[in-house]
Amino acid sequence: MLIRSEFDIQFYLPARTPIVAILNLHPTVEPRVVAADDLRVEHAGPAKDCEGATQLCVEDFIDGFGNRCSRFVAPAGAIRLTGSSIVDASEMPDPQGLNLPLTPVEDLPSDLLQFLLPSRYCEIDRCGGIARDLFGGFKPGWEQAAAIRDWVHEKVAFNYKAARPTKTAMDVFTERVGVCRDFQHLAIALSRSLNIPARYVTGYLGDIRVPYAGPGDFSAWYQVWLDGRWWDMDGRHNEPRLGRVLVATGRDAADVAITTSYGVANLTHFCVESNEIDADGRAVPLPAAVTRMPVQVEHA
Amino acid sequence: MLIRSEFDIQFYLPARTPIVAILNLHPTVEPRVVAADDLRVEHAGPAKDCEGATQLCVEDFIDGFGNRCSRFVAPAGAIRLTGSSIVDASEMPDPQGLNLPLTPVEDLPSDLLQFLLPSRYCEIDRCGGIARDLFGGFKPGWEQAAAIRDWVHEKVAFNYKAARPTKTAMDVFTERVGVCRDFQHLAIALSRSLNIPARYVTGYLGDIRVPYAGPGDFSAWYQVWLDGRWWDMDGRHNEPRLGRVLVATGRDAADVAITTSYGVANLTHFCVESNEIDADGRAVPLPAAVTRMPVQVEHA
Amino acid sequence: MLIRSEFDIQFYLPARTPIVAILNLHPTVEPRVVAADDLRVEHAGPAKDCEGATQLCVEDFIDGFGNRCSRFVAPAGAIRLTGSSIVDASEMPDPQGLNLPLTPVEDLPSDLLQFLLPSRYCEIDRCGGIARDLFGGFKPGWEQAAAIRDWVHEKVAFNYKAARPTKTAMDVFTERVGVCRDFQHLAIALSRSLNIPARYVTGYLGDIRVPYAGPGDFSAWYQVWLDGRWWDMDGRHNEPRLGRVLVATGRDAADVAITTSYGVANLTHFCVESNEIDADGRAVPLPAAVTRMPVQVEHA
Amino acid sequence: MLIRSEFDIQFYLPARTPIVAILNLHPTVEPRVVAADDLRVEHAGPAKDCEGATQLCVEDFIDGFGNRCSRFVAPAGAIRLTGSSIVDASEMPDPQGLNLPLTPVEDLPSDLLQFLLPSRYCEIDRCGGIARDLFGGFKPGWEQAAAIRDWVHEKVAFNYKAARPTKTAMDVFTERVGVCRDFQHLAIALSRSLNIPARYVTGYLGDIRVPYAGPGDFSAWYQVWLDGRWWDMDGRHNEPRLGRVLVATGRDAADVAITTSYGVANLTHFCVESNEIDADGRAVPLPAAVTRMPVQVEHA
Repeated sequence: MLIRSEFDIQFYLPARTPIVAILNLHPTVEPRVVAADDLRVEHAGPAKDCEGATQLCVEDFIDGFGNRCSRFVAPAGAIRLTGSSIVDASEMPDPQGLNLPLTPVEDLPSDLLQFLLPSRYCEIDRCGGIARDLFGGFKPGWEQAAAIRDWVHEKVAFNYKAARPTKTAMDVFTERVGVCRDFQHLAIALSRSLNIPARYVTGYLGDIRVPYAGPGDFSAWYQVWLDGRWWDMDGRHNEPRLGRVLVATGRDAADVAITTSYGVANLTHFCVESNEIDADGRAVPLPAAVTRMPVQVEHA
Repeated sequence: MLIRSEFDIQFYLPARTPIVAILNLHPTVEPRVVAADDLRVEHAGPAKDCEGATQLCVEDFIDGFGNRCSRFVAPAGAIRLTGSSIVDASEMPDPQGLNLPLTPVEDLPSDLLQFLLPSRYCEIDRCGGIARDLFGGFKPGWEQAAAIRDWVHEKVAFNYKAARPTKTAMDVFTERVGVCRDFQHLAIALSRSLNIPARYVTGYLGDIRVPYAGPGDFSAWYQVWLDGRWWDMDGRHNEPRLGRVLVATGRDAADVAITTSYGVANLTHFCVESNEIDADGRAVPLPAAVTRMPVQVEHA
Repeated sequence: MLIRSEFDIQFYLPARTPIVAILNLHPTVEPRVVAADDLRVEHAGPAKDCEGATQLCVEDFIDGFGNRCSRFVAPAGAIRLTGSSIVDASEMPDPQGLNLPLTPVEDLPSDLLQFLLPSRYCEIDRCGGIARDLFGGFKPGWEQAAAIRDWVHEKVAFNYKAARPTKTAMDVFTERVGVCRDFQHLAIALSRSLNIPARYVTGYLGDIRVPYAGPGDFSAWYQVWLDGRWWDMDGRHNEPRLGRVLVATGRDAADVAITTSYGVANLTHFCVESNEIDADGRAVPLPAAVTRMPVQVEHA
Repeated sequence: MLIRSEFDIQFYLPARTPIVAILNLHPTVEPRVVAADDLRVEHAGPAKDCEGATQLCVEDFIDGFGNRCSRFVAPAGAIRLTGSSIVDASEMPDPQGLNLPLTPVEDLPSDLLQFLLPSRYCEIDRCGGIARDLFGGFKPGWEQAAAIRDWVHEKVAFNYKAARPTKTAMDVFTERVGVCRDFQHLAIALSRSLNIPARYVTGYLGDIRVPYAGPGDFSAWYQVWLDGRWWDMDGRHNEPRLGRVLVATGRDAADVAITTSYGVANLTHFCVESNEIDADGRAVPLPAAVTRMPVQVEHA
């Protein structure tokens, strides 16, 4: 299945501003990339429109989590970040590791231990008791991890207006409302509290073979590590999906902001799309209703 | 100057427990190490005493921050962690980078950008306004960094009883009381808010050529990055000191816990010492009163 | 000056729900009331529209702060709360107690001491140090109180989207954005920290002799107690205004919610108006631009 | 049963300080008072000892909750607060309202509605979901209230060192450790979330007919309102006790501090005792072991 993802993000900057962006696909996706252009940043001078744009010099680097990051310095005025990619994605929805046992901490690779630690938005020093109360009775491993994801999905309501940059997993636990990242932060914190390595993911998750659900955006989900690999989980959608395209992973949203501006940057345009396309590059129409997805159980 | 550092930490474990420890010296200290033995972990069976101890197998690894970490699985019962080192430390107290300018974000090496991000105990998404109000008027760079350190030192009172694992920089800002780590977390958060890369440090800071100040412990301080290197800062002691011995650095205390136990571990003994010794290995007596330290200004 | 205030608030209730409302004018306003009808609550049966409404029985009571509260039990379905009043308001804007000294705690009437305590949204146990740092240098009394109000007005940005029910004064202090109540909570907390009794107020503050500023709503402001009386202050608008009509006062917003529903109540309509009228009951047109208001200094 | 309660509390004040104290017995206890002297405050001049003390003038007032409060202004120097009382307490331990139904909100007396609101340390705007998850399945009324109390008692550990003035119910919920007041705050917040009116109580709870449990102190417990009256509950001790002597009630600890000093007051001595005495005024010896208490079920 071919997935074309693209973005067009524009800011107006009152002053010269260094910016870090994580907008290229994750290096691990490369084997499936059919076509991709790098992040392109154009600048339009001090005027507010984008005409006469000139391309800015962008430097790439790999951060400590293996993400492909970009940095550049934008002069005052209007800037525009664009990029697109086509990946050949699996025809099967998110694989399910049913019945997988918990990997004991002692058997975890050392570089995974960081995904058991507290982080900015996942204050696991605050939720050990809660996690044990709610999920201590489940079988450690996939069953427990899935119970956490299901609980978060059931208890937290989605509301765009309930987003805020300071919101932590425990805020979500008490307020019971949030956006994508909030669902995942709570699920991550509860998972780590039970010694399940969990990390935050940003990427594309378009309406692929599911009915149209509104304007596109970047998506957040999370991954748990069981049986020697990471498994995609999604506290918000909580159903196996097709067409996730990985951009970045980190301990939580603090590590993988789409853009970090070291100065004022006023968002003026934001368009993100991720669609299935056919061999001719035409978008495949979406179904009017949810059709039954195939189930991909890897461990039964 | 020779500094001998040593520790003897004992736990009683009700059950078999994986443990991660950061107790060996930092790899960057190696050129100055005169003698050092690795972390030694002994176990004494299910009985509560330490007789008949047997040595456990300890595996070393380097974490994402470059720290030398250790991991082992301890059977139920009493365990004892010991180690010691002698380093040939500088005769000069912490160098002062007076008047150094702020390095613009765009000129920072990419691997330092993480030290501008929010982290578990340094919620810089909450303190930008505070930092600008209090320190916006200082000259960016050393002057501003030193003003932050001085302010934290002046406003926060030290009290061992005010420690708690969930305490964040903003808690310290409002409660105005804490232990070592709390001073540093607040100073780090305020520094990062003004685009000064700042990281948390654990290590030894004994009473070296200063009067005896009580039983030894590990210490925490922090570092800011200016002019191409890290500079030691210490919101608690706030005076140039001799004999800091680096163990680990990270974004904040969440990254560099002395020990992290994945299970219950009851501390039964804790002894940490760091002293100046002479060529014969004898501890150098401490002065009865503070004597004037030499000043090491590297940039004037 | 005649001020007509009126509201029309409608809810849809999935189930029978007890409700407490604070919507009648405050008893202390009575001497200036020209006309007023009590809160009227109508019910429209299980259908979602309001036709065929029948009036519900409403019981009044005075709460511990002296507010005139109402309680009733609404059956499932649509309900509508309406009311209106005309008061003969002062022609002069909020009086200014310039130079008034702080009343020492020992001279405060005993029933005012509660307005020095911490409350749900004004955690003064967290902001003593902050208040002393920022305002300790001002002359205790009006000058200090006004400095607090001015600071809050300057530092906090208004944004309807930044409202949330759990937001406290310290959240406002760190996030620097909020709605009416948030400005007042922060100002109240800082005032109390410096021993200035401060209480939260809800009421009407229409666009009276100022240009139109958008659809009407209830407003929140606060009062400080100096020289034997309460003085209106407003951290959001921060300019002397005409036509404040008092509904309720309390320690903070927790005490004086417009409506408190003990069950789910979905708001379906909300209209609040407060306008100057002439002797014939016609709304007085608003000026196109701000005209200079008279200044009412009571203590110089 | 005769209970003699007494206190001797001393402070050193660097400067003249207004103080409010709530140290006299609650007015509702009066019918059972055999003997009681009012709070006595002595002052010893600028010297640090208490010799040559002179008695200060103390003014009593009743606060908005019906508590008998005292206020006075203490000159700089040492002050001493003393008082004692003898009450004729019930021979039966705390009555149990087993099976009592919840009183619907609509049937609550209006002056009880305040005990359903959020307050400083009981942020019920944050714990509705938690309360429904944990206790939604219990029968509303005594059964649910007792389930909350039992849960708090089981999940929270007592530790004097875990006290801090800013600790809220949700902090206790996450940290799972605290002192008397913390247990009660969490239980109150959870109770109110389920529409059970709950208030905080301070008073004496000595070791009465139970084994000695350490030096005396004031105690905190809470009360829930069911079937037309308040019932004592105690999340910390969680067993029916003899000899509770009521001093004050409020929404939470913010309302009923033993002493509130408007300035620095250094505690130099603190002694509180509450003991059973015989007719001759001699302390009745305590049992070496817990004996079975009679059960006082008022509703079965």
